[in-house]
Amino acid sequence: MRDEDGAAPLEPPPGESPIVVLVRPQLAENIGATARAMANGGLFHLRLVAPREGWPPEGSRDSRAWATASGAGRILDAAKVFPDLDSALADCHRVFGTCPRPRHVVTPVLTARGAAAELREFGARDLRHAILFGPERAGLEAEDLARCDALVRYPLNPEFSSLNLAQAVMVLAYEWWTAADATPPRILQTHKTEVATKGEVENLMEHLLAELDACGFLRNEAKRPGMVRNLRHWFMRGEITEQEVRTLHGVVAELSRGRMRRGRPD
Amino acid sequence: MRDEDGAAPLEPPPGESPIVVLVRPQLAENIGATARAMANGGLFHLRLVAPREGWPPEGSRDSRAWATASGAGRILDAAKVFPDLDSALADCHRVFGTCPRPRHVVTPVLTARGAAAELREFGARDLRHAILFGPERAGLEAEDLARCDALVRYPLNPEFSSLNLAQAVMVLAYEWWTAADATPPRILQTHKTEVATKGEVENLMEHLLAELDACGFLRNEAKRPGMVRNLRHWFMRGEITEQEVRTLHGVVAELSRGRMRRGRPD
Repeated sequence: MRDEDGAAPLEPPPGESPIVVLVRPQLAENIGATARAMANGGLFHLRLVAPREGWPPEGSRDSRAWATASGAGRILDAAKVFPDLDSALADCHRVFGTCPRPRHVVTPVLTARGAAAELREFGARDLRHAILFGPERAGLEAEDLARCDALVRYPLNPEFSSLNLAQAVMVLAYEWWTAADATPPRILQTHKTEVATKGEVENLMEHLLAELDACGFLRNEAKRPGMVRNLRHWFMRGEITEQEVRTLHGVVAELSRGRMRRGRPD
Repeated sequence: MRDEDGAAPLEPPPGESPIVVLVRPQLAENIGATARAMANGGLFHLRLVAPREGWPPEGSRDSRAWATASGAGRILDAAKVFPDLDSALADCHRVFGTCPRPRHVVTPVLTARGAAAELREFGARDLRHAILFGPERAGLEAEDLARCDALVRYPLNPEFSSLNLAQAVMVLAYEWWTAADATPPRILQTHKTEVATKGEVENLMEHLLAELDACGFLRNEAKRPGMVRNLRHWFMRGEITEQEVRTLHGVVAELSRGRMRRGRPD
């Protein structure tokens, strides 16, 4: 395995992450793009069954596959080649097969998310597990599917379900990574101390209201409470930071001073 | 819009699905691959801001972009081109920007799944909504991000977060489609009536046990209950179908008959 590429993922212990098995892949570029997608999702182990162009393609590790891998060349360096599917799966405890189209087979069918959750379980139980992806156009054959514990069918537009090979790997790798990720669906990216307190926002409101009273903007006593409330709602909704409060104090002050300078008190 | 491609998605009503905005995309192939990923996830509306190679690239609709779109050419046919980001977003109510690396900006950050859920809400409220993807290497710039209501950062391997453009679109399109999908994470793909009843399985067990008694396999009376229970566990775990029960009746009968024929009663 080569060492020079600092961005490449380190090899995880076997059994911890799923083995990606490309069955009869046709194009070297797609094998490289698969490696890149695997690295994005933290996968490492790649097996190739009877790749059409041989392996390494063009007899060299300096080829199209390594170019499209785009920094994930280590995965290609460590890839293992097998003449047939049975030899590729011989040491695996569990095998899933991706299968975009419905087939009349009596096998459990998982969504990508369901599959990711079960793959994580296999890892936790130290079961060596693999997921198969078929050749670019045809997909896995019935004989391949009969070797799978379950099939994986992504929920996608049924009117346009033909996925690029590396994109199929991407979705699985993404779901696998996400299955162990606890990022909340929405966060405000500030340090806690950067968010302004209610008191700081209220100071700003008072500064603004004083200037608005001074220039007569709030002169209609009947409408004043509603107008003030509308402004307050808008300030509260924005989840304002301390820095923004300071900036807005400056904006209010400068606008008022400009009005003064131009001699237009309203 | 061209009509000849029956596999291409139909145009959904505006506002119903997010507009994908590619900001300063560099390669025509990636624009085509983006269209294919959009079609996979049921998206249709594509806007291009200042594409480096112009649009259509090479002055023709019969180019690399249409080749990599692989049947999703209608999305490219209907794509709109804008000279700058502000003109591309002028009619949009909500805008998200994808941003793989942490930036020091005060903007909410969503996961892909969180973003998909919020995009679905915008659609339900008839708000025209867009999601921005930056140029291949550099990603969106600070000026682009300042135009976004929220940033989207996928949970992915932080040591290898550089995503291919079309794969970034794929993950978002996949999440958007999945957000409205109710497929259970695991199903057994049979008609309900094809799954064998407990009575059918029990008949098979009795057939098998009778033959095993006849050949003496269960002759150890002390071990017999445990051996029978083990066999029963295995039959129950497999979620067997009616067809499989019939096949297995045949297997048991033929094995017994073969044993008889070879004159080896045990």
